[in-house]
Amino acid sequence: MKYCQHCAGPITHHIPPGDDKPRYCCIACDVVFYQNPNNIVGTLPTYKEKVLLCRRAIEPRLGKWTLPAGFMENGESTLHGAIRETLEEAGATVAPTDCSLYTLFNLPYINQVYLFFRSSLHAPEFHAGKESLEVALFAEEEIPWSELAFPVVRITLEQYFADRRHGVFPVRMFDLHYSVEGQLNTFLVSNSAAK
Amino acid sequence: MKYCQHCAGPITHHIPPGDDKPRYCCIACDVVFYQNPNNIVGTLPTYKEKVLLCRRAIEPRLGKWTLPAGFMENGESTLHGAIRETLEEAGATVAPTDCSLYTLFNLPYINQVYLFFRSSLHAPEFHAGKESLEVALFAEEEIPWSELAFPVVRITLEQYFADRRHGVFPVRMFDLHYSVEGQLNTFLVSNSAAK
Repeated sequence: MKYCQHCAGPITHHIPPGDDKPRYCCIACDVVFYQNPNNIVGTLPTYKEKVLLCRRAIEPRLGKWTLPAGFMENGESTLHGAIRETLEEAGATVAPTDCSLYTLFNLPYINQVYLFFRSSLHAPEFHAGKESLEVALFAEEEIPWSELAFPVVRITLEQYFADRRHGVFPVRMFDLHYSVEGQLNTFLVSNSAAK
Repeated sequence: MKYCQHCAGPITHHIPPGDDKPRYCCIACDVVFYQNPNNIVGTLPTYKEKVLLCRRAIEPRLGKWTLPAGFMENGESTLHGAIRETLEEAGATVAPTDCSLYTLFNLPYINQVYLFFRSSLHAPEFHAGKESLEVALFAEEEIPWSELAFPVVRITLEQYFADRRHGVFPVRMFDLHYSVEGQLNTFLVSNSAAK
């Protein structure tokens, strides 16, 4: 950020009075431009015993399989964003009343929060949107585990198949962190079923 | 947004190729400036049978009581943001392992998502931070219901006292919407305890 979006004046990067972190500031406008994390919202759509996955037509992870998800937009809720992405990427319609919050992930190293909702399809009706190469239903033993696009997708699917054996689907939150060796580690930080 | 933050050139507001919503764009840089919702993260800190509330020293709702909460920052998780705000506003230290995700709220009319964590204090140690006039513990019958700052605080407290009677604290998500008559309505959209 080099120029002020209001006056085109120079932006400085310093700790504003009363703050404790450096921010992008315009002295002329007396405005601070805060930068905050983004939410990525998606669904885990199921039809009978199968899960709907999309094969990505775009980078990153082009050609890999994912759950439908994307950036939450202004003016929508997390759930409506997740439903919109499911329609855009998988051509599948899910009703808000058929959705439940399921997994959340903090990815502080890229300033993102993922929120996935379990959802169910009334019919096996779907098609690849422009960001997908193909969309298909997978039984548990058919999941392309080695071809999944993102760790958050793998973890959400693992939790789902494990929870399904018990018929109970707690809401869980995870932190993802890279170790100094560059390995991505996952930590469960909250579980609605815990005491 | 009038000027590009990269080149100070003029910003236009139009639907970029391949998109379906108007965005702020710089033609010269070929960059789209997306605008996305912000997360506000906080805690419901308890000590024995009491809940910790802060009386706001800043607008909006100066002088009203609230749970410690604030904007999630880049580089932190939702929970670490909530713990940081609890320390900043209430001078209270809570450990991540003493926190559980509890209520989420979508406020699409102001592009915000609230996330509150239940948390517990090991000792009644707290003090007013610079954004608080005072900080105090309240038993259920002492809660200043008519002097609460925000609907999300009232709903979170109502849920907490109701859930405490059963000793079960499901994760719930709510949508808040204004009716055409200007009344704020609350809708439960997800409940981890539901089938």
